[in-house]
Amino acid sequence: MAESPITPRSQDFAAWYQDVVLAGDMAEPAEIVKGCMVIKANGYAVWEGIQREFDTRFKATGHRNVYFPLLIPQSFLQKEAEHVEGFSPELAVVTVAGGRELEEPYVLRPTSETIIGHFFAKWIQSWRDLPMLLNQWANIIRWELRTRMFLRTTEFLWQEGHTAHSNHEESLAEVLRILDIYADVAESIMAMPVVKGAKTLAEKFAGALRSYSIEAMMQNGLALQAGTSHDLGQNFGKAFDVKFQNKEGQLDYVWQTSWGVSTRLIGGLIMTHSDDKGLVLPPRLAPIPTVLVPIFRKDDERAKVLEAAHKIAADVGAKVDDREASSPGAKFFHWERQGVPVVLELGPRDLASGKIVLKRRDTGNKEPVAQEELAARLPATLDQMQSDLFRAAKQRLKDNTVLANSIQEVESILADVSAEKGGGKFVMAHLKDDPKCDARMKEFKATVRNIPMVDEFDGPGKCIVTGETVDRRSVIAKAY
Amino acid sequence: MAESPITPRSQDFAAWYQDVVLAGDMAEPAEIVKGCMVIKANGYAVWEGIQREFDTRFKATGHRNVYFPLLIPQSFLQKEAEHVEGFSPELAVVTVAGGRELEEPYVLRPTSETIIGHFFAKWIQSWRDLPMLLNQWANIIRWELRTRMFLRTTEFLWQEGHTAHSNHEESLAEVLRILDIYADVAESIMAMPVVKGAKTLAEKFAGALRSYSIEAMMQNGLALQAGTSHDLGQNFGKAFDVKFQNKEGQLDYVWQTSWGVSTRLIGGLIMTHSDDKGLVLPPRLAPIPTVLVPIFRKDDERAKVLEAAHKIAADVGAKVDDREASSPGAKFFHWERQGVPVVLELGPRDLASGKIVLKRRDTGNKEPVAQEELAARLPATLDQMQSDLFRAAKQRLKDNTVLANSIQEVESILADVSAEKGGGKFVMAHLKDDPKCDARMKEFKATVRNIPMVDEFDGPGKCIVTGETVDRRSVIAKAY
Repeated sequence: MAESPITPRSQDFAAWYQDVVLAGDMAEPAEIVKGCMVIKANGYAVWEGIQREFDTRFKATGHRNVYFPLLIPQSFLQKEAEHVEGFSPELAVVTVAGGRELEEPYVLRPTSETIIGHFFAKWIQSWRDLPMLLNQWANIIRWELRTRMFLRTTEFLWQEGHTAHSNHEESLAEVLRILDIYADVAESIMAMPVVKGAKTLAEKFAGALRSYSIEAMMQNGLALQAGTSHDLGQNFGKAFDVKFQNKEGQLDYVWQTSWGVSTRLIGGLIMTHSDDKGLVLPPRLAPIPTVLVPIFRKDDERAKVLEAAHKIAADVGAKVDDREASSPGAKFFHWERQGVPVVLELGPRDLASGKIVLKRRDTGNKEPVAQEELAARLPATLDQMQSDLFRAAKQRLKDNTVLANSIQEVESILADVSAEKGGGKFVMAHLKDDPKCDARMKEFKATVRNIPMVDEFDGPGKCIVTGETVDRRSVIAKAY
Repeated sequence: MAESPITPRSQDFAAWYQDVVLAGDMAEPAEIVKGCMVIKANGYAVWEGIQREFDTRFKATGHRNVYFPLLIPQSFLQKEAEHVEGFSPELAVVTVAGGRELEEPYVLRPTSETIIGHFFAKWIQSWRDLPMLLNQWANIIRWELRTRMFLRTTEFLWQEGHTAHSNHEESLAEVLRILDIYADVAESIMAMPVVKGAKTLAEKFAGALRSYSIEAMMQNGLALQAGTSHDLGQNFGKAFDVKFQNKEGQLDYVWQTSWGVSTRLIGGLIMTHSDDKGLVLPPRLAPIPTVLVPIFRKDDERAKVLEAAHKIAADVGAKVDDREASSPGAKFFHWERQGVPVVLELGPRDLASGKIVLKRRDTGNKEPVAQEELAARLPATLDQMQSDLFRAAKQRLKDNTVLANSIQEVESILADVSAEKGGGKFVMAHLKDDPKCDARMKEFKATVRNIPMVDEFDGPGKCIVTGETVDRRSVIAKAY
């Protein structure tokens, strides 16, 4: 419960992030389990909020939740050639169980396409069984070398949607419908603007025809891939022999999709809104939107202030911080670091004047409000803060999105960018979707983030690597 | 989607159970992963309902959700002597990860006391940090030899509460508060009556001072342990060195509790209410409480019936089954097997008379209801069904609870009981809480289920094994 200092963003953004996570009681590294973390109560409550928003939208679009086993027979991974190549280096393997060496080891799911493919083959016979629209909330294990809390951990929590369709038109529509849901929650709930687009072929999911992503910009200008939706084509259908009889009576392989968002989103949320004082949570995801801190010096003030505090708090749905052992100053400091959107102060003078002081976490503005107006003002303030956070993040994204028309220009813009020092940009350049162009960007530690769905720039132009004409500019950035 | 037959309960209760699970699309064995199952959409929706009920109650009593790593360093298990002995045979072990042999293997959590003990030691310094009231929703792996869907699977989903307190009075109060919550959800939501009681010392959780359970009776008379709450005393506090400074300034070990319910509850739900036609779900847990099946023969009836069906369904919150490819008969059969509490039938004749036919899943009674009364009648019917299911189960528990005053009597009552043939009883007998008495019961494949909190029988009496006087009768039964 010690209140550790927070490194300023300008000094070391990466250290700042870690400090904010710890100061906000969001998570802590589980140093005894390689690359894992404990998600603490504040962090988990934010995750529950994110889950609720997605889950409602998935169900409203016809998806149903299910649960498949954590353990996957090792041989399953090998059935799709690209898939096994992509995931092999990251697998954790159970070789001993119940006191014996296993004949066939199990891998801990790094994702569930393979085991779900096995069951799709059992469940799907006819076009009448399609579409099959499933989702699961689960833990995932990928043995990562370099980990950061929330952003990349050996174990993480996510949802993974898996759907099967009778033709490519429908499966692609599903992929894009989900991408829209991802962007909607990111923007309207998390107040985190994103760029929707197609990943390059070099960056697609192992086993997909094409992947799509939402990419967000953190305060250091680095990109964060915040959700992906994959058009799997018939690749897994063929690998797992998922055939169905179509309306014409012919056998065909199903067209599949898969898509996921994870606890990584919480890292994105933190790096989008928080400041040098600690966590800033958008009101729609704040587990505690409002705290009321009663202030009194003398014992005879105490009873009156507390009574009024509890009455007002009950009216407006605030939490009263009536801890005896803490001073008001310590309480303000505490709730600020926890990212509570609005803190109310109520002292004897406010009581006398019929007012209460309202302080917004993002702006730090303090404003006296008539007590009888609070029930109307508080939700309006929370709504305003929600939209201000989004607007500020959107403006930052705009300010740090730049055009480049040569490879040298891209390189020079991104030259001094780092997760620690910041200065990142979304560099918009014409680039052919060819692995050799991706490779060229990697020479200066940047990647093609995606090819935006909507072109907000100047249409076709010449690829800065090959000179060939391409449809629109791609987003190039350094990224998490 | 084939509609497989259901074995009658009287013929083979175990086969019936498996058939009901499959026919109700609740789950299916994952034969390629030893002892695991896939929880299908219907089963998972019931689990979500159960989760919601518990989660609300845990939060209302001050608990907060968190998430600890799945992987636990193998050495952690060894720190509490009884604990490692209890869980060692069931462990699954990760020995290889990221392409290399691990220096220290990780076990997949069989329960999380050990890893949470490690973090409690970091987080708790003073009585001000107590009580610490945490809960997590997680998957668990225990390598079981004999598995049955929901009842005992290698992987299962559960919640595990872990709390730390400054004295035994408070930790014991927590243990019993949770036991009450477990009993409340079992009875008021699942309509499954339970007996609350203390487990014998021989049957307690490995590492606890004392365990408490709720025990339910299935339709074959077998007992199902449906939830457990453990008084851990200072055992894990000592094993993981979780010390705090008390109000007097002295260092002491914390007093801990842990408690859990799992997807096993779904098995209990099924074996409490379902019948030879398939699943029966209590209305409060039915993902779809009401389905409306429109009936028409001629094309000119179709539009009118469907229009009225959708209008009525929207008014009362029912799902319309307007699938073209199925006959009404096939639809009734389908929803019956899925356990939908109320099915409404609406045909041209009902339309003419302003009525609609309401059919209850549990009784099979069909009753015409005036359409304008449906909005009031439907919720009343669902409430009635909920309480009738509980009353029937309670009566069955009462009818099959018998007294025994000698070891021979217990043995003879339970002689021909089996999971397949049924005939099980809760045998109430005076029995000393001594491992040798538990062992004596095991000779005829019975166990002491618990020592009830409330004595509904005749108070003290002589132990049927040792002859010593004990406080009250225990529950002895064959069990899952």
